[in-house]
Amino acid sequence: MAKKYVYFFGPGKADGKAEMKNLLVGKGANLAEMCNPPLKLPVPAGFTVTTDCCIDFFANKAKFPAGMMEQVESALKKVEREMGMKFGDPKNPLLLAGRSGARMSMPGMMETVLNIGLCTKTVPGLIEKTKNPRFVYDSYRRLMMMYSDVVMEKAEGIEPEEGKGIRQQLEKMMDEMKRKKGVKLDTDLCADDLKELCEKFKVRIKEVMKKAFPDDPMEQLKGSIGAVFKSWFGKRAVAYRNIENIPHDWGTAVNIQAMVFGNMGQTSSTGVAFTRDPANGKNVPFGEYLVNAQGEDVVAGTRTPSPINNESKNEQNAKQKTLKEVSPRCYKELVDHMNKLEKHYKDMQDVEFTVQEDRLWMLQTRAGKRTGFAAVNIALDMIAEKLIDTETGVTRVKPIQLDEFLHPVIDPAAEKKATLIGKGLPAGPGGSSGRIVFTADDAVEWKKRGETVLLVRDETNPEDIAGMRASVGILTSRGGMTSHAALVARSWGMCCIVGAADFEINFDKKTVTAANGKTFKEGDVFTLNGSKGTVYEGKLPMIIATEDPRFLSFLKLTEKYKSVMKVRANADTPADAKLSRNFGAEGIGLFRIEHMFYGEGSEKPLSYLIQMILARDPKERRAALDKLFPLMKNDIKATMKAMEGYAVTIRLLDPPLHEFVPHKEENVVKFASALKISVDELRKRGDALKEVNPMLGHRGVRLGVTYPELSEMQFKAILEATAELKKENVKATAEIMVPVTCDAKELKDQRVIFDKVLAEVKSKYGLKSLDCLYGTMIEIPRACLLSHEMAAESEFFSYGTNDLTQMTFGFSRDDIGTFLSDYLDKKILPEDPFQSIDPNGVGELVKVSVERGRKVKPNLKIGVCGEHGGDPASVEFFYNAGLNYVSCSPYRVPIARLAVAQSEIKAKQAAKKPAAKKTAAKKAVTKKKAVKKKK
Amino acid sequence: MAKKYVYFFGPGKADGKAEMKNLLVGKGANLAEMCNPPLKLPVPAGFTVTTDCCIDFFANKAKFPAGMMEQVESALKKVEREMGMKFGDPKNPLLLAGRSGARMSMPGMMETVLNIGLCTKTVPGLIEKTKNPRFVYDSYRRLMMMYSDVVMEKAEGIEPEEGKGIRQQLEKMMDEMKRKKGVKLDTDLCADDLKELCEKFKVRIKEVMKKAFPDDPMEQLKGSIGAVFKSWFGKRAVAYRNIENIPHDWGTAVNIQAMVFGNMGQTSSTGVAFTRDPANGKNVPFGEYLVNAQGEDVVAGTRTPSPINNESKNEQNAKQKTLKEVSPRCYKELVDHMNKLEKHYKDMQDVEFTVQEDRLWMLQTRAGKRTGFAAVNIALDMIAEKLIDTETGVTRVKPIQLDEFLHPVIDPAAEKKATLIGKGLPAGPGGSSGRIVFTADDAVEWKKRGETVLLVRDETNPEDIAGMRASVGILTSRGGMTSHAALVARSWGMCCIVGAADFEINFDKKTVTAANGKTFKEGDVFTLNGSKGTVYEGKLPMIIATEDPRFLSFLKLTEKYKSVMKVRANADTPADAKLSRNFGAEGIGLFRIEHMFYGEGSEKPLSYLIQMILARDPKERRAALDKLFPLMKNDIKATMKAMEGYAVTIRLLDPPLHEFVPHKEENVVKFASALKISVDELRKRGDALKEVNPMLGHRGVRLGVTYPELSEMQFKAILEATAELKKENVKATAEIMVPVTCDAKELKDQRVIFDKVLAEVKSKYGLKSLDCLYGTMIEIPRACLLSHEMAAESEFFSYGTNDLTQMTFGFSRDDIGTFLSDYLDKKILPEDPFQSIDPNGVGELVKVSVERGRKVKPNLKIGVCGEHGGDPASVEFFYNAGLNYVSCSPYRVPIARLAVAQSEIKAKQAAKKPAAKKTAAKKAVTKKKAVKKKK
Repeated sequence: MAKKYVYFFGPGKADGKAEMKNLLVGKGANLAEMCNPPLKLPVPAGFTVTTDCCIDFFANKAKFPAGMMEQVESALKKVEREMGMKFGDPKNPLLLAGRSGARMSMPGMMETVLNIGLCTKTVPGLIEKTKNPRFVYDSYRRLMMMYSDVVMEKAEGIEPEEGKGIRQQLEKMMDEMKRKKGVKLDTDLCADDLKELCEKFKVRIKEVMKKAFPDDPMEQLKGSIGAVFKSWFGKRAVAYRNIENIPHDWGTAVNIQAMVFGNMGQTSSTGVAFTRDPANGKNVPFGEYLVNAQGEDVVAGTRTPSPINNESKNEQNAKQKTLKEVSPRCYKELVDHMNKLEKHYKDMQDVEFTVQEDRLWMLQTRAGKRTGFAAVNIALDMIAEKLIDTETGVTRVKPIQLDEFLHPVIDPAAEKKATLIGKGLPAGPGGSSGRIVFTADDAVEWKKRGETVLLVRDETNPEDIAGMRASVGILTSRGGMTSHAALVARSWGMCCIVGAADFEINFDKKTVTAANGKTFKEGDVFTLNGSKGTVYEGKLPMIIATEDPRFLSFLKLTEKYKSVMKVRANADTPADAKLSRNFGAEGIGLFRIEHMFYGEGSEKPLSYLIQMILARDPKERRAALDKLFPLMKNDIKATMKAMEGYAVTIRLLDPPLHEFVPHKEENVVKFASALKISVDELRKRGDALKEVNPMLGHRGVRLGVTYPELSEMQFKAILEATAELKKENVKATAEIMVPVTCDAKELKDQRVIFDKVLAEVKSKYGLKSLDCLYGTMIEIPRACLLSHEMAAESEFFSYGTNDLTQMTFGFSRDDIGTFLSDYLDKKILPEDPFQSIDPNGVGELVKVSVERGRKVKPNLKIGVCGEHGGDPASVEFFYNAGLNYVSCSPYRVPIARLAVAQSEIKAKQAAKKPAAKKTAAKKAVTKKKAVKKKK
Repeated sequence: MAKKYVYFFGPGKADGKAEMKNLLVGKGANLAEMCNPPLKLPVPAGFTVTTDCCIDFFANKAKFPAGMMEQVESALKKVEREMGMKFGDPKNPLLLAGRSGARMSMPGMMETVLNIGLCTKTVPGLIEKTKNPRFVYDSYRRLMMMYSDVVMEKAEGIEPEEGKGIRQQLEKMMDEMKRKKGVKLDTDLCADDLKELCEKFKVRIKEVMKKAFPDDPMEQLKGSIGAVFKSWFGKRAVAYRNIENIPHDWGTAVNIQAMVFGNMGQTSSTGVAFTRDPANGKNVPFGEYLVNAQGEDVVAGTRTPSPINNESKNEQNAKQKTLKEVSPRCYKELVDHMNKLEKHYKDMQDVEFTVQEDRLWMLQTRAGKRTGFAAVNIALDMIAEKLIDTETGVTRVKPIQLDEFLHPVIDPAAEKKATLIGKGLPAGPGGSSGRIVFTADDAVEWKKRGETVLLVRDETNPEDIAGMRASVGILTSRGGMTSHAALVARSWGMCCIVGAADFEINFDKKTVTAANGKTFKEGDVFTLNGSKGTVYEGKLPMIIATEDPRFLSFLKLTEKYKSVMKVRANADTPADAKLSRNFGAEGIGLFRIEHMFYGEGSEKPLSYLIQMILARDPKERRAALDKLFPLMKNDIKATMKAMEGYAVTIRLLDPPLHEFVPHKEENVVKFASALKISVDELRKRGDALKEVNPMLGHRGVRLGVTYPELSEMQFKAILEATAELKKENVKATAEIMVPVTCDAKELKDQRVIFDKVLAEVKSKYGLKSLDCLYGTMIEIPRACLLSHEMAAESEFFSYGTNDLTQMTFGFSRDDIGTFLSDYLDKKILPEDPFQSIDPNGVGELVKVSVERGRKVKPNLKIGVCGEHGGDPASVEFFYNAGLNYVSCSPYRVPIARLAVAQSEIKAKQAAKKPAAKKTAAKKAVTKKKAVKKKK
């Protein structure tokens, strides 16, 4: 007996079910599920030809495998019975839709043929039956357009020149017809026009394709099934799967389903609806529909759809009649079906429906997309309704969706009507409005005058920090997602758009010209949507949601799931420390000592630092360091105090020193006079420090090796701050982190200084012990490989995955702008490795390092700081690698917390699964437990 | 019974032997070996206290372990018997020397005490016996100086202030005595002076050390042994071992030996001799001696030693009497002993001897250091003499010593007398003389006029290439061993000194001022010794040795041992290809396409390249590439033809494009006019290409991904060149190497272009096949980790260990100058990782990559190109990693060949060794065999 290739579905009964996702694929499986008890919804009958059949089709030299067509014919009989029509019948013809279904979304590669079964024989009967010749000819021409394209051209491997495809040719003919008739819309063509077009189409198809459009319904059906199969091995689909690593032996399924028509007149319609409001999560049905229309028309957007009920009304459609008003019975049925579906699937559903002559048909159901606001509300509501448990609720919000709560956002209604003047990369979240200024100094100046400003630059650099702080948003015309502006803005949670090449800035005139040619001057108002990268003219209203009690309730849910891996914050100031604590951070994972040399109040420490950098001998250097010391100690102490009860990881000075040497004329003059040297001398000494590849130059621990007095001063500042807090009964723990290490001997070298200072500080303050750890930032490939040696000299590790990614890939974060987009476009890389950790290369180094480090020190505390610590996919990776904490910018803390919770739930669920998967999962869980015990 | 702690040695019999190196350490073991049959040489009797005893000493709270002193006393009795003197005897006192002996050389940490046994009681007897009071008091004061320093101060852990040590105090007293007496040399002090000094020393020692200098010989002996032991755990020694990873539990041995005196008058002397001439290898005894002197005096260098025979004469000592003349019997005895030693040890020996009152004593023997010339000659001679077999002969020359044959060298005799005017880093080998010029253009100009020039710059850059080529040597005042000048010079085998900070250059005046204050002007003559980094005034004579038949004979010996791993050359021109073949290269491992844009004849191709780089759109870019294509094809073809019969690995364009954009004013003007754009426009477009970290920027395959037309042109040039050669019946194989890859998809992306071009070229030339491979340069850590994926898309790998080292360490080769010296000084790194491969970090990546690559493709051809390919230690590493070839600059080929041969011999010998080591060795050999089979 032949394999079962064909699965019938129809109201009340189906061969398949929701679980058969591999064989029938999501769409087919859900159609079957809707038909089956207990749902038994009114679904147009049909059948699914399996993925298995597709595989056998190719094994059989692209011919249908034995037995398939018999099964198709038998299923077709059932469909005819169910629908009360006959396929190819001249009087009461059944029309079919054929759609592909692949397990992974393969956009642009899905083929669809509608209205299968229309032919010379059936057209008159359908006209007779529907009394609607326009509808019939419109359907007929659509069939011809789709069929000639999908079946006769693409499936045959014909590759016409650009713009010369058969479909385009037919479209041009239709345009010509419209021009001739002096009308604009397809719908303006009358039945006769369309009839004429159909005849012309037939002639053109035969001319171009060298064979006639098939007039036999069964031939049309076979052709459609075969074409969908063949599209699986189409050139583009193969290339796409190669790139996406989708197995070629999955195959595609084909869904053949009875056509129902929403375009059969005023009692017909088609629509989409959600079981709850996808914008805010409110528990009311929400949707829209179009009378006398098909799905295509909804997508085309030429007509404004009507709301299904009052709750779905908006400004545009407020005056249109609701489905509830027009057809209360259909509406009630729809709502009933939707309620059933939501209860059955236990999630908000997005359904498609068609009403054909006052009869409701359900065409599709799937989990509905929703905003972050809606996701949080729906999760909390469903838990309250006892539809789902807490664990499920926690997994129902994508971590990144929490971002919506963390920044003011533009009121979506207002945004829709606003004037878009340009686009860039969404580098910093939320929305902001302000007057535009073109220099950092102007930003500071204007802010002092009480203005709210947006800083507009080609790109930013550390000297702009004060101006960036003074602004409510940043817009740059150059730079990528990891440019200076983007990094700083993200760490501050500040709205920012970078690389907005639409804008041409004239710094002399202090004007900016948008893509539309309009020129704006200093002081004009822009609004930025940093989450989307869009720029609008004028001021738009904002919504602020951080204090939303629902958001806080949801965050509370995650607390159950943070026992294994903690979330810390990257914070450099008492204010940021407090903010992080409010968001639930349990410590600071990265306090950058150099922060005190940027931004407001940095003038004095910076001048001492520059004095130290430009010192001619150790004596001068020491003198400058002595002046810097008390400032640094107090700076560190303030943040440690704000983080009382939690550890603070303090990184020693990391950037190459030349980064601090002033370049701007006015700063050069200022510092030269402060240092009592000539401007030329300052420039000369600064130039001598310049490096070819500063990323790989004299920085991090290398500074400490060449200038031990610099390390000594920093150790002293940190340890005295810790000691003083202890004296003041403030519980403070310093984790001192040595950056850019590549060899354990660097750590040994610095440890000698550390030990000496520690002894001195203990004696000075009369303390027997001091809460402090000595550890290192692992950010160089060699340090990962030699982690067994590094661990012997460290009390903790923290991965600096930004630099580790730079060196593992050989990518300079500052320079990848020139080629990264090509790499992403060509799918050479799945995504920017600075956004989400590369699990294969960088990830292997992290895993190797954890393993080697813990082999030497099983209790080694290991964390990660840097951008990846706030990326949900990376957080999951780090969770599975057995890290003790992730650290990220304050505004990413809630996101990381949710990602941790979801990772923990996933690991727990995997542990419960039986058999094959168990081993791997168990391993992961055992590791987690081991880590837990240590703490 | 106590352990055997003490090993006696004396003429004709010794407890130990040469093999006991761990227990007795080299010195003690060789002393024993010289005593034992068959050598039975006259060695002053003595005994070695073992390293074992040292360990037990520390286990016993720094007290001698039970039984040791009894063994010492019993051995001492034998020594007394043997020497016919008694330790501490008032009439016939035996004096002893105590010396430490550690398994690893620990410079500055070895302690020595001479003349042990002199005291109030023995001094008069010795005077009586020797009739030489000056000798006795001189020996006495020496004992006090050494003993108070080593035993009373250092061993007690006393750390006086700088310059205030007891030894320095005593030395000052001696200086004062000389001043008082109005004499200059120690030897000018008479017996009474020294006697007075000895009394004063005793007082001062008691004053400072708070205890008296011991007057009991046995106490002196015990103190000396204990002090040598204690020096093992001295602060500096411990720190040194920590850094050098020498185990602390090795301990040191102590050699106690009867003193013999070369300073007992005109029939006494002391000297050193080699069994063959260490400068040229001539098979005659060679050495020098000093009458009436001790070893110290030879080292001090205040007197000119005399030659032992006529063959050892030189200009300074030609008129002095030889040992052969002065004491024919002693000379004959010495030569006999030396012959015996050489036959016994089967290697040229370096001996120390002392003649005490016409009696010859042998004090030490060890393998003698020799020049490369000597090493080659000695190896060839000893093989001819059948003293050693070929295999041994091949291992007797350090690969790096061959360098002496590969470049003209300054005549050593002339160099000794020349005027040294400055020093720098020895960046390019050999010597060269020429007129100094200060710009690359001047170098070209002067050369055209027929002058021989040396280019003197602060540092060089690619625009200087033509001038560098026109010079015979390069001197730069800045830069390190891997600066541009150093890299280029080494690859050309050109004499070069970099970082010679002694020189201050004034480019305006075209003068250079040396450290001695003398200023030289353009056209003055300098001579550089690039092997030592020394600069001399004027022209010095040179020796040229490349054609030396002995060198060629020796190279021939290595041919037997190259079956497993081949040596290729990095060569970009037909001339270099020919040179490499002469040196035995079997292929080119790196032909850099970009070479054609540097140096002479590069103007035209460079202008097309710049045109391509600055193109505003793909059309302009394509036009420039079309012009470049024929030039590139012919350039590649010429070198492939010169390498007929061997493969040529051609690397696609690698550097970031901005490297080619002109910066020098005159070049900017020239190219702007050639490109018909304004100078400003050219500068602007060039600036736009600048990168923050060019090393990690838009280069290598990234260029090919963003500009596929650039790859296409290069593939076409290479494949058409190969095809044309095939048509001309020249056997040519192109190995096309894609650089800077980090993901297999990059290779896939470029392979599509490669396949297309290959098909086109085959069709164009009517060829069914073409000898070419498509592979990649592995130089990014991620590529190593993902080598299984890279291998699936490559037909060969070649490691670019320069870049791999940069990224694995996070070191920019151009910028490490600022901290590398500190890293080497502090022993954080054992050596510059760009000179010799880092086996732990970079090495692990290479090994992982080989393993993963071969797992997917067992026959994958794997090589290495870059500086490390010519470094002997690295070559051995690559051999053991299972590589198929190393590639290095032409002048390094002989060195690499010898390193390969020695690696192969070592592996063979290891394979022969039994037991524990066998497994590892076998593994290595099996791997080699596997590789062999594949080829």
